[in-house]
Amino acid sequence: MAKSLLVVGSIALDTLRTPYGEVADELGGSATYFSVAASFFAPVRLVGVVGEDFPPAFRKVLETRHIDTAGLQVVRGGKTFRWRGSYQGAMNEAKTEEVRLNVFGDFRPAIPADWKDTRLVFLANGSPVTQASVLDQVQKPELVVADTMNLWIETQRDALAALLRRVDGLVLNDGEARMLAGEQNLVSAGMKVLTMGPKFVVVKKGEHGAILVSSAGPRTICPLPAFPSTTVRDPTGAGDSFAGGMMGYLTTAGEYDFPHLMRAMAYGTVTASFAIENFGLRRYDTLTIDEIDHRLREYHEMLAF
Amino acid sequence: MAKSLLVVGSIALDTLRTPYGEVADELGGSATYFSVAASFFAPVRLVGVVGEDFPPAFRKVLETRHIDTAGLQVVRGGKTFRWRGSYQGAMNEAKTEEVRLNVFGDFRPAIPADWKDTRLVFLANGSPVTQASVLDQVQKPELVVADTMNLWIETQRDALAALLRRVDGLVLNDGEARMLAGEQNLVSAGMKVLTMGPKFVVVKKGEHGAILVSSAGPRTICPLPAFPSTTVRDPTGAGDSFAGGMMGYLTTAGEYDFPHLMRAMAYGTVTASFAIENFGLRRYDTLTIDEIDHRLREYHEMLAF
Repeated sequence: MAKSLLVVGSIALDTLRTPYGEVADELGGSATYFSVAASFFAPVRLVGVVGEDFPPAFRKVLETRHIDTAGLQVVRGGKTFRWRGSYQGAMNEAKTEEVRLNVFGDFRPAIPADWKDTRLVFLANGSPVTQASVLDQVQKPELVVADTMNLWIETQRDALAALLRRVDGLVLNDGEARMLAGEQNLVSAGMKVLTMGPKFVVVKKGEHGAILVSSAGPRTICPLPAFPSTTVRDPTGAGDSFAGGMMGYLTTAGEYDFPHLMRAMAYGTVTASFAIENFGLRRYDTLTIDEIDHRLREYHEMLAF
Repeated sequence: MAKSLLVVGSIALDTLRTPYGEVADELGGSATYFSVAASFFAPVRLVGVVGEDFPPAFRKVLETRHIDTAGLQVVRGGKTFRWRGSYQGAMNEAKTEEVRLNVFGDFRPAIPADWKDTRLVFLANGSPVTQASVLDQVQKPELVVADTMNLWIETQRDALAALLRRVDGLVLNDGEARMLAGEQNLVSAGMKVLTMGPKFVVVKKGEHGAILVSSAGPRTICPLPAFPSTTVRDPTGAGDSFAGGMMGYLTTAGEYDFPHLMRAMAYGTVTASFAIENFGLRRYDTLTIDEIDHRLREYHEMLAF
């Protein structure tokens, strides 16, 4: 039986434009992308907050994927977190045009009593204080992985340092890794982050893939390219989908040594490659684990020089 | 016995600065990096031009690597091509501060009579007209691969188009591939370039590796990450070293199907990873094919998820 996987993070309504089209009030948010991506591998427990305006159809999307929404707080009279942005050209970077935190601004995660024994925990991007409050509420998980961002590195360095001593893994993008470590070389940056607490770091590089740097065993580095897609319509949520596929696989595998982390990275890569094929979470509506496995084999062959 | 490999391109004296130091009048140039990198795999025939100021010690560097310099023209009273530039931060891009083409500005490659049957030809970056003049002088090589750059894409589009119909492979960087194809997506850009003539395209992405796109066989795409080095002191010549390792391996292998192209990409990746460990060609002074093979195995394991 798969172990239990908990994610805590944002649930948002995204309005965005890419060279391939635009959507308004689309289901988004870090915890959402993570949950749906992970749900292809294992049952997911979602902790987040929305306003009264959160469409019942979106809750249905989550429940259809067997994501347990018992931890989804609905704030009476509140509004759901909204993000508006756009992508241009090669879509390497989102340009944020508007952020309304709304109910997410006062988010105090409350872990349901019967989820406190969750075995794997993913702390999606959020303030390190909020992330730490989740760890205060769970009992000795086997694997804790956190995401973070430049904002927290710049403004809550001490709280982040304290958090890093309590996590097993950290996921962050290349610019953030350089900022956190004060190292330009990404491998050196990853190694420096290992001295801050985590046993492994995954540095995400968007369309260029990701690098895993681990303190475990003799083989400690795994650089993987992104899956080479010709269909990329909306990169929103790629990083969270990657983390979802990665953690979802680890939940099923139940082992966290270097070979399993490598394979988890590959699953994360492939799972994310589907997400970006269509706007928001739409590609996941029809996706199956067989398609993921098929693409993983393709990906494996592409690298088998 | 290995087949014969010919390279035509620039030989330069580089003056450059990186965060790790600076060097003046260092042996450089596309054909130089290519030759030395390829020389670990096969004998290389070098066609290029230098001035009378070209230091005998640098000719010695080439000859020590068993590079045949019978095609090296020395222009009496002329000066060698000089490039001055610098790298900052993550060293992803060279900032060119000064270029003096000198004798390279009037370079008319002359292929020695007994080299006309060369089996593999690499046309390092140069004007497509000059590159084509090389093909006019050789007899039916088995494999012709060219490099190009934005300057030629912008200013000599027709000549470049004509050249592309005569080559088997094209090597270029990501920005150039996007420009040439008019496609933002790199895989789509690679596929579009295939319609212009080449049977395969290698899109180089610097620290992010490279993507091979080929029209051969059912497996047509191979994305490889760069070798994850912590020691990167001078990225000059990385792309030409990559091409040198790639073509050097193909010369020894004597086969150019997709599996061999994949392996050639991996050898190119690993060979280039040594070049950037020290300034100019210095790391190659002590490098051995055993070290290259050892790192290839390491690299292979890193990707074996």
